[in-house]
Amino acid sequence: MQQYFVNGKADKLVTITDKDTIKHMFNVMRLTEGDEVVLVFDDGVKRLARVTNVQEHTFEIVDELFDNVELPVQVVIASGFPKGDKLEFLAQKTTELGAHALWAFPADWSVVKWDSKKLTKKADKLAKIAQGAAEQSKRNVIPQVKLFEKKTAFLAQLAHFDKILVAYEESAKEGESAALTFELAQLSAGQKILFIFGPEGGLSPAEIKAFEGVGAITVGLGPRIMRTETAPLFALSSISYVLELAK
Amino acid sequence: MQQYFVNGKADKLVTITDKDTIKHMFNVMRLTEGDEVVLVFDDGVKRLARVTNVQEHTFEIVDELFDNVELPVQVVIASGFPKGDKLEFLAQKTTELGAHALWAFPADWSVVKWDSKKLTKKADKLAKIAQGAAEQSKRNVIPQVKLFEKKTAFLAQLAHFDKILVAYEESAKEGESAALTFELAQLSAGQKILFIFGPEGGLSPAEIKAFEGVGAITVGLGPRIMRTETAPLFALSSISYVLELAK
Repeated sequence: MQQYFVNGKADKLVTITDKDTIKHMFNVMRLTEGDEVVLVFDDGVKRLARVTNVQEHTFEIVDELFDNVELPVQVVIASGFPKGDKLEFLAQKTTELGAHALWAFPADWSVVKWDSKKLTKKADKLAKIAQGAAEQSKRNVIPQVKLFEKKTAFLAQLAHFDKILVAYEESAKEGESAALTFELAQLSAGQKILFIFGPEGGLSPAEIKAFEGVGAITVGLGPRIMRTETAPLFALSSISYVLELAK
Repeated sequence: MQQYFVNGKADKLVTITDKDTIKHMFNVMRLTEGDEVVLVFDDGVKRLARVTNVQEHTFEIVDELFDNVELPVQVVIASGFPKGDKLEFLAQKTTELGAHALWAFPADWSVVKWDSKKLTKKADKLAKIAQGAAEQSKRNVIPQVKLFEKKTAFLAQLAHFDKILVAYEESAKEGESAALTFELAQLSAGQKILFIFGPEGGLSPAEIKAFEGVGAITVGLGPRIMRTETAPLFALSSISYVLELAK
């Protein structure tokens, strides 16, 4: 069944005000009185809702649904600014794979230079992609998108996490393969994990040092070299496998 | 170091004849006498090679390298024909993630209808993408690409595998989460695995029955709904995690 995210909290009678949502509901899906959809409010609970008035875009809540498809830990994916539209790709795919948020920051070896105007525009676009992907993959929350203009602002966030992992190619080259497994085995439900990835050129030694200085752990992701936009998908899949399938 | 796949076997002196490879070596990378690259021949062994003559495109083999980045099992990803350029996406990403081959077949619910002419053209394009991705991710082999015009020809291949897994959304919906873990734990090095994925609309009940009839096992890939082109990446990542990292 079609799912939509709606800002605010669930009242008995809901009026949809977001114009993209209205357009999709009544122009694309052509919902009519009595049709049912799933609405997800800020509390992340899915609710079955029935159209009561097409012109006024109103729904009545019929039932609460109890399925929750969120990962048991909150995983924030942070990528050094990659080239082109790789963040758009990541916004869609990391949402499907359960990320709690997608962050990006200007890494030492990021080739692109994005000013604040460009970043605001890009963040808006990414947020829309994440919302669409969250609806399609029936998520309970829309991953937050945050693009940091300054690396210092990104670094200031690091204290808020229970665990920081850094995908580091050198770890993989040295044949290190156990660190990720070891770290994933330590996780407990509700923890906040930050998983950091470099841009195309990788992370600089200074960045690795800065991350390690606040307790980050470098981990390898196996023997093959993955593109910068593929590595986060491997990481999220592994986390899902360990915490959702192999439990 | 730049890596190239070369047809044939490794002689002491190698002449490159493939014109795309020549172009990349001498026009894009501007290799000159004495420069070194990695060449991978049909035997999958990486060899360090040095340019001996730029005009004649010749190399001498300097050394054998012993790194092997192939998954310990051969995983063939088979997808029902998906829409648009999703197979192009899969050719790149499944190569990075270690697939042995990418196959596709006309599934009952495939929307696209590709005739043999289109399929030949598409297979050529996919093979080029797989080769480029295999060079970038430093694979020892280029994944084979095979597009089946008839589903019967695809079904005829099923007998050649040690294990056939089918990603099945209904398994996920039923909350089944242990089957993939159970199956991956049984794998032993050298086995041939076929992992089947539906097109956008999924696999039909008749297809599931046909696969199960030859011993295929349906597995869920976790609670979130993934797009048809994302599910194979999750599967390959999980296999890599279990067989290469968690070992």
